[in-house]
Amino acid sequence: MGIQAEIVSIGDELLIGQVVNSNAAYIANQLNSVGVFVDTMTTVGDSEPAILESFKKALAAHDVVTVTGGLGPTHDDITRAAVCKFFGTELIANQEALENIKQRFARRNIALIKRNEDQALVPRECTVIQNHYGTAPGYLFENNGKYFIVMPGVPGEMKGMMDEFVIPYFAKKGTGTSILHRTLKTTGIAESLLAEHIGDVRALFAEDSGITLAYLPSAMGVRLRITVRASSRAEAERRVHDVESKLRSKAERYIYGTDTEELEGILGKILTDRKLTVSVAESCTGGLIADRLTNVSGSSNYFERGVITYSNDSKIAELGVPSSHIELHGAVSREVAEAMAFGIRSKSNTNIGLSTTGIAGPTGGTAEKPVGLLWIGFSDRHQTNAIRFNFAGDRRSFKERASQAALDLVRRKLLKIES
Amino acid sequence: MGIQAEIVSIGDELLIGQVVNSNAAYIANQLNSVGVFVDTMTTVGDSEPAILESFKKALAAHDVVTVTGGLGPTHDDITRAAVCKFFGTELIANQEALENIKQRFARRNIALIKRNEDQALVPRECTVIQNHYGTAPGYLFENNGKYFIVMPGVPGEMKGMMDEFVIPYFAKKGTGTSILHRTLKTTGIAESLLAEHIGDVRALFAEDSGITLAYLPSAMGVRLRITVRASSRAEAERRVHDVESKLRSKAERYIYGTDTEELEGILGKILTDRKLTVSVAESCTGGLIADRLTNVSGSSNYFERGVITYSNDSKIAELGVPSSHIELHGAVSREVAEAMAFGIRSKSNTNIGLSTTGIAGPTGGTAEKPVGLLWIGFSDRHQTNAIRFNFAGDRRSFKERASQAALDLVRRKLLKIES
Repeated sequence: MGIQAEIVSIGDELLIGQVVNSNAAYIANQLNSVGVFVDTMTTVGDSEPAILESFKKALAAHDVVTVTGGLGPTHDDITRAAVCKFFGTELIANQEALENIKQRFARRNIALIKRNEDQALVPRECTVIQNHYGTAPGYLFENNGKYFIVMPGVPGEMKGMMDEFVIPYFAKKGTGTSILHRTLKTTGIAESLLAEHIGDVRALFAEDSGITLAYLPSAMGVRLRITVRASSRAEAERRVHDVESKLRSKAERYIYGTDTEELEGILGKILTDRKLTVSVAESCTGGLIADRLTNVSGSSNYFERGVITYSNDSKIAELGVPSSHIELHGAVSREVAEAMAFGIRSKSNTNIGLSTTGIAGPTGGTAEKPVGLLWIGFSDRHQTNAIRFNFAGDRRSFKERASQAALDLVRRKLLKIES
Repeated sequence: MGIQAEIVSIGDELLIGQVVNSNAAYIANQLNSVGVFVDTMTTVGDSEPAILESFKKALAAHDVVTVTGGLGPTHDDITRAAVCKFFGTELIANQEALENIKQRFARRNIALIKRNEDQALVPRECTVIQNHYGTAPGYLFENNGKYFIVMPGVPGEMKGMMDEFVIPYFAKKGTGTSILHRTLKTTGIAESLLAEHIGDVRALFAEDSGITLAYLPSAMGVRLRITVRASSRAEAERRVHDVESKLRSKAERYIYGTDTEELEGILGKILTDRKLTVSVAESCTGGLIADRLTNVSGSSNYFERGVITYSNDSKIAELGVPSSHIELHGAVSREVAEAMAFGIRSKSNTNIGLSTTGIAGPTGGTAEKPVGLLWIGFSDRHQTNAIRFNFAGDRRSFKERASQAALDLVRRKLLKIES
């Protein structure tokens, strides 16, 4: 059931460990959803003999082979030539690819050189996969029920081709089986405690049901991944839905979103629906909360402004924090967090003011106020208050945890979920 | 020259794309430092025939094979049995491994079950690699100058064995070769144009010199990676230095750092050395510049404050941007960028004011001001001006490119490099 695939990744940067191969995971995950199962992943370097040997082995043993990497414009990009040699074909100009390259350069006001134009040369015997996120086109060779797909190694370009061409292509073809994944994203609860809430998985589904549940912890929270294998997409969807309902009944309050949803997008939707505006005053998070809020298209409708008040002077001048608060309680304190949240809400005239002050480390901690200490302030027309947190981890991880806790605090306040 | 290696990774979680294979990158990078060169990476699932086949192929073509994954205590961990079958040996108890397991459970106050004790059974014909970060021991098989190393797939446990056993082992043995990598990080120049500046690599080093040069593009800029293989570390260092000098003579102005250095860290060092302070006023970058600046420990010494003025009102109120500028030229204009940079510098009393205003997309573009348009403003006591950019890519990629261009603009101003 299903068809077997091998993923071939090309690039010296992978073999020397400079780049982690995240492309292979993405491709495998996507292929699974249309019933194409990866049983081997192979990585080789920018060497023609190694590339040709990998093509030969992969295609001999599999119905589908995907290849990424080595399609760029420089001397070390040799995949295209290797593909031509492998299939015994030659390069011809592709007008659509050339137009795409010309337009990309024109938009950026950069002169086109021959090296770039040459990227529009493609093997004669293939279906060209246009690149909507870069210059190098991809190729599909189809022969006797075997499929050989070549894509660029730049993750955004590869993902574009997978999402817009490869997955729809196999979905349309139909493979007789379907694997679906669904991820429930939680935050504000430790992995072990979440596992206690959910209990024994054998109460959720039978061991031989083709269903698995995985716990995936990260700085942003613990993700719960449901994987279902079934004979049809409809059946797989029904089972995923069933397990998701059971998990939600046990841990709903911690789940903020699913799959690729981010907390900033979920919060943005709530703010938009309720026509509410927010402003932020950040100290230890250093702009990360504002950065995340503004990653969402349309955020200008609810995000009015932010300030990053790193110095004490700026907390006083920008937010009207009383200097006596800082002297008496220190800049990392409940009082200052509350004054910051109130101050940014007042000056920006938004519905909600959000603030952070804490010790990101690695320096600056004391016995009383250790690295990892965080106060998050919240202010609206009914209340101004602050909550204390302690986070482990390095400076960046602290900032990520702090920004996640702050955004989730607003989400919970708006949805009236007790913290 | 040097020893050739293959990295074999085992696990269904890798083949379905649930886990990104970061182990392979770590192992490759570490092996390189002791002259062991990885030319192939292979991933197979939890299937005995596939595992045995991968062992056979890998050991036939390589002097060193590393294997990770499938050593855990559960039913789907089948690597140990496959290893025994492959080498025609049997399991025996290892006292040191058993003591380690008992101690770990005692420390955590967890009762030991047989499934855990069984992890202390190891193949008879191997050197046991003790696990200081978990329960499953690793194995080294040495025969006729070939080395077959088996480690757990848990990253922390694998890293412990690599750092404490595998790397010292090959370092002591001496491989008669050394591989060094050096990455020069550029920004502000397209890959193709950088290649034009650098010209034919055969003018930099001979094809048979054991030196390679790779171009690695990303939103943050193009990285140039030099790889040198030589008979000794000293010789490798001399050659790396020689190639780096040649590359710098051709592209110095675009190179902001090396290896793992980030632009925010480089700029932070310049600001610290010169005792200069900076403040930022961001519109389209939404806090990302401040976030990056504050990722650096010690940034509170030079980063005074930032504002994210997303609304027109906030640009006027926070930064004193004349409303007539916005009416006449629009919020995304040279005039507004300059007024923002001047405004933030004045109010925060810093040496430098930096600003961004642009159209991150995907909506909000017009024919005259398309998505991707960016103005970066700079102000110090000598000058206030702004530079226009156009960037392709999605919203996040635009923000990354814009933040990189803004930080690099400050770096170039301070180092008096013409833009």
